[in-house]
Order: sequence, then C-alpha cells, then structure tokens
Amino acid sequence: KQYRIAVIPGDGIGKEVMPEGLRVLEAAAKKHGVSLHFDHFDFSSYDYYEKHGQMMPDDWKEKIGKHDAIYFGAVGWPAKIPDHISLWGSLIKFRREFDQYVNLRPVRLMPGVPSPLAGRKPGDIDFWVVRENTEGEYSSVGGRMFPDTDREFVTQQTVMTRTGVDRILKFAFELAQSRPKKHLTSATKSNGISITMPYWDERVEAMAKKFPGVKWDKYHIDILTANFVLHPDWFDVVVGSNLFGDILSDLGPACTGTIGIAPSGNINPEGNFPSVFEPVHGSAPDIAGQGIANPIGMIWSGAMMFEHLGEKEAGKSIVEAIERTLAERTLRTKDLGGNADTTACGKAVADMVD
Amino acid sequence: KQYRIAVIPGDGIGKEVMPEGLRVLEAAAKKHGVSLHFDHFDFSSYDYYEKHGQMMPDDWKEKIGKHDAIYFGAVGWPAKIPDHISLWGSLIKFRREFDQYVNLRPVRLMPGVPSPLAGRKPGDIDFWVVRENTEGEYSSVGGRMFPDTDREFVTQQTVMTRTGVDRILKFAFELAQSRPKKHLTSATKSNGISITMPYWDERVEAMAKKFPGVKWDKYHIDILTANFVLHPDWFDVVVGSNLFGDILSDLGPACTGTIGIAPSGNINPEGNFPSVFEPVHGSAPDIAGQGIANPIGMIWSGAMMFEHLGEKEAGKSIVEAIERTLAERTLRTKDLGGNADTTACGKAVADMVD
Ligand SMILES: CC(C)[C@H](C(=O)O)[C@@H](O)C(=O)O
Ligand SMILES: CC(C)[C@H](C(=O)O)[C@@H](O)C(=O)O
Repeated sequence: KQYRIAVIPGDGIGKEVMPEGLRVLEAAAKKHGVSLHFDHFDFSSYDYYEKHGQMMPDDWKEKIGKHDAIYFGAVGWPAKIPDHISLWGSLIKFRREFDQYVNLRPVRLMPGVPSPLAGRKPGDIDFWVVRENTEGEYSSVGGRMFPDTDREFVTQQTVMTRTGVDRILKFAFELAQSRPKKHLTSATKSNGISITMPYWDERVEAMAKKFPGVKWDKYHIDILTANFVLHPDWFDVVVGSNLFGDILSDLGPACTGTIGIAPSGNINPEGNFPSVFEPVHGSAPDIAGQGIANPIGMIWSGAMMFEHLGEKEAGKSIVEAIERTLAERTLRTKDLGGNADTTACGKAVADMVD
Repeated sequence: KQYRIAVIPGDGIGKEVMPEGLRVLEAAAKKHGVSLHFDHFDFSSYDYYEKHGQMMPDDWKEKIGKHDAIYFGAVGWPAKIPDHISLWGSLIKFRREFDQYVNLRPVRLMPGVPSPLAGRKPGDIDFWVVRENTEGEYSSVGGRMFPDTDREFVTQQTVMTRTGVDRILKFAFELAQSRPKKHLTSATKSNGISITMPYWDERVEAMAKKFPGVKWDKYHIDILTANFVLHPDWFDVVVGSNLFGDILSDLGPACTGTIGIAPSGNINPEGNFPSVFEPVHGSAPDIAGQGIANPIGMIWSGAMMFEHLGEKEAGKSIVEAIERTLAERTLRTKDLGGNADTTACGKAVADMVD
C-alpha cells in the first residue's frame, strides 16, 4: 500500500525543517520498503494569508481530508498576524474538524542533549504525555459584560463531555497497558477547580476499573509540575486535560533539555480523519531564514507518523538514527552545542537510518 | 504597638512546625523590640471537624477578623475528610471572605539546598510569584447536565473581573517597581484560552502604561513553565491568574530544591482584613507525628508576616537566620540531608536570629 501524505511546511523555520523531515522519511521508507506519496500545500501560512485573506482555501477539507496523514511544519507569526487567526485558522481547526482528540508527545532524555536537571542521564526520563485535544479549557464559550466600565467582567467556560473525557482516558490507559511499567498518572486540580476537575477524577476512576493491569495515581497540577522537575523518573504515561496536557507537554521536553527537538502527534485514533504530526516548536521568527534551525523535532514527528501508520520498524529506525546523530557533537545544530546547519543535521540522520 | 496574631496550627505537621515558627517569631521580636500577642485557635483542623461537624465555629470572623495577621500551619487530610470540606471550609474561605486577593511566594535558591537544576547556585534564582487569589479559574459557577448518560457534560466558568484583575496587576507592578531589576513577567495563554486570557493581556497592557519604569513581558503558561526550568534567572516578578499562579508557585519552589521550605502570604494589601501566612507544604499525613517535619516553611512565613506588618528588620533577620541555618548540614532536617529533628532545626534558627 502507498501512503498519501499531505505536506504543509507553514511559516518560518517550518519551511526550513520540512525538507529534512521529508529527506529522512524517504530514507526510512526506502530501507523498510514503505511507499510514500507526498502532496505539497502552501496554505496554513502567513504568505498564503497575505495573498488570500484567509489561512486556508474554502475546500481545505477536500484537499487534505482523505490523506493518510498530514506532515506539518509550524504556523504563526505573531508580529504579522494574530494567533487567533493563524492558529485557530489552521492547527486548532484541524484538531477540531478532524477530531484529533489525542495530542501525544514523548518526553525522553536523548544522548547528547544535556538535561537541565542535575544528574539525569538518557534512560532516566522516558514517558508520554497524552493530552485531550478538542475541548476542556479551550472552549470558545463565554463573553464580556459591562465593557469599559468598572463593573466589566469576562467569563469563559471549561467544557468536559463524557465522550471527550472517556475517549482520551481510554487511549491513555491503553497506552499505559502496552508499556512495561503499565503506569498511568492523571493530572487534576479537583481541590481548587471544583466542578470540572472532580468530574475528570470520577471518569478516571471509572476507566481504571476496565484496566485492572494498570497502576494509576493522580496529582494536582501544581505539585505535578514540581514532580516533573524533582522526580521525572516517576512517570510512564501522564494524561491531562487540554490545558494541563499543554503545560506538561512543554514542561516535560524542557526537563529533557530542549523543546527544540520534541515531536508531537495530533491523532484521530479511529482513522476517520487524517492525523497531524508536527514538531512542538513554533515558527521561530527570530531565527527563521538563517538555516540554523534544529530539524530533529520535525524528523522525530515523522517517526511518530510512521508509528501511527502502523510502520513501526520504519519509525523505530528513525528514532534510533536521531539518537546516533545527537550523540555526535559535530552533527548537532548550534542550539545543542554543535556546528551543523539544518541541512547537515538532516542529512546525518538520513544517513544513519537503517 | 502590640501586634495581635491569630495562631492556627491546623492538621498534621502543621501542629509540629507551628511551635518552631512561634519560637523564631518570639526570638526576632525580642531582638527587634517588637511586641507580639498570640491567640491560639484549634479550629480549621480535622480534630475540630470531628467534634463539631464543621471546620470552623459560626463566629470565626468575629474570633479572628480583628487580628493583625493570621499565622497558619496546614490544613487537610484527604484520607479522613474531603478537600472540598477541609480546604474550602477554611483556607479558601479566608482568601475569599477576608479578600486576600494576593497570594505571594518567593522563589529563592537558598544555601545548603541543592537545586535540581544543574549548575544553579544561591543568588541565581531569586524572584517572586504573585498569584490572583480570589477569582479566575477557582469559581464555583458551573454544573452538570444529562448526568449518567452518554450525553453527560460538565462546565465550569473562569471569571475575571476588572476589579479583580486590575488590583492584582497593580500589586505586582508595584512590587516589580520596588526591586532593582524592575522586571515583570505575565503568565498568559491567550493563544488557546481565547476569551479570559486576552482580557488578562489587555489589562496588563493598560496597567503597564502606569508603570513606565517597569520592563514587562509575557509568556504563554506552557513555555513559561519550560522557562522556569531552562532560564530561572530570567525572572524578577511573575504574575498570574489563580490557576497559573498556583502552578508557578509550586514549580518555582521545586526548581529551588524543595517545596518543603517555601513560605506564602495570602494578603489583603489594604489591611481591611487580616492576611494569612502559611507554609506552601500541606499537612503531610505520611510523616506527621514523627517530629521530622522541616519547620523552615513555617518560619519563613513568619518572616513574610513581619514584612507585611511593616517590621522589615525583624523579617530580614529571620530570613538571614534561615540562610545561616541551612548552610550547616547538621542543622538541617532529614529531607535536606541533615539529621536535625523539627525542634532542633527550629531552635537553631531562633539562636541565629540577630
Ligand atoms: C489546597 C489548594 C486548594 C491550594 C490551591 O490550589 O490554592 C494549594 O495548592 C495552594 O496553593 O495553597
Ligand atoms: C499554539 C497553541 C494554541 C498550542 C496549544 O496551546 O494548543 C500550542 O501551544 C501547542 O501545544 O500546540
């Protein structure tokens, strides 16, 4: 079978790391006898917006809705275009309209990347953050009253549905069950956020009953962030709401040295719609155009895409190639103390794939 | 003038660290010619709840509402009493009904306390987290619909008022202005939480105009937690909503080695009501009764209380005594690699006060 991949480089360094991501995907596909077909799209970018006054064409769903996956660079350029247009007009639209209810990110300390945490070595930190990706705190329900007066106030609702909560918990428990430690940690704040978070806890307890083989615990988000720093070795699979998952999946990669190399998947597990794979970093206007961006996040996202497509061996070969590349200082980009540029680093990973 | 302090030890290790807090307060008061009067209260504890079926007497406001400050140990014992009774029946009640709209916590790397962050030394990390303490995400507005069906959902509103947001920002900007670096960082998430957080940003911008001497910036909460780990030296005063402030004021102390020694103030700046000073740690049922709890958080909270009362010299003398005590391994408690018990550590600090 041939996989059809929609390729969307987006903005800024997204355009620079994408060619390296594709290079490595092709190398791994070749080695593992996987057939890939790429369709390139220029929308979901500032350039497209400037020309067309919107982030995507009206028929964007027809254009990319039938692909097996979407390989995405980065979007957003706050100085030129407000986030609520760029992000909500593309990335968040995908998440909602393609029902990508899982946001999945590995937190893994890699060789060659010094951890900011004292004394932690590769192998010490290796877990997944599973984030609810469609509802929760990112609702658009709310508004403002008494504008421009002293009585002014705004409200915004967090919305948790049975469907939304249960399906992300099921995914997280299944992931935990598939791992050697079989350990799930739930992020809550039921002692302070007194309606939605107790509901979350309640559903975790109910779901846990269906997974008797999984050990689980829960922490309030405040102490959980503290424990990411103090005890990153405690975690195996961590599941959280849209906001808590967002926080933990930036904090986790920071604890492993840099969010510059972290990958992510925005996944529709049922495969009713394509999933999006993208680096955690943004478009980084400050370093765009210099050819120095670290392509590892993009490349690693490609590994997650293979994994999602069921091509586990091809995915694994990329992760191993990343590890071997990062272990060599000269093959790393400047942000990691090396001297390779974006292309040299991408080529190195492609060469290492076997 | 004599200050009248309401003393509430609460639960668990709260009862064990309180005598050390009082010991040090008395030592510093004596050295600095400050007169303190303590009134002791047994409510806001599980024991009280067991006897009376409620956390506090009906006339709690008359009992402690006229004191100059409240010195508070710890409350809560999840195995015996649900948080929504213990915490919402005491601590959160104080915050709301005494309008303690500022939650203030120092993040400061102390001598003798190894930072989990590689290579950070005392002096490298020294900032304040200012948290909105009465509204925001901790509203009680919301509910559940279609219970026990597949259509079930819950909602909870975040509420931000002009009054609530402006007064916490004013406090934070004033604090920043009083410090050498004059730098304020605002925690936001306006790219995802699309109604309340843009409002927060708008008010920050408006308030900043009144403090032209303060440099300010803002980060989304996800990357901000990452920067606490990667660049703790970037910060001077960090201000956030109730939830964001809660997270940052646990994560910050974790980055400085332990939340076990962190103090906090729940402050009503106008002095219309008493403010509450309490350690950040909870009642720690797991180690309660062993006499090994670290009293530094309680003692340091006493220093913040002096500061709030306007007795700056007495406050400073306690912080310096803490620093000298922590620098000696034998005077530290077990959690910090020492062998002192709670009392020995408390006595050491009291002796060091000058
Ligand atoms: C106990 C809990 C409700 C509380 C909070 O979240 O406010 C605590 O974490 C704190 O920071 O004082
Ligand atoms: C860009 C922003 C809306 C987004 C989010 O918060 O979801 C980002 O932080 C992410 O994690 O993908």
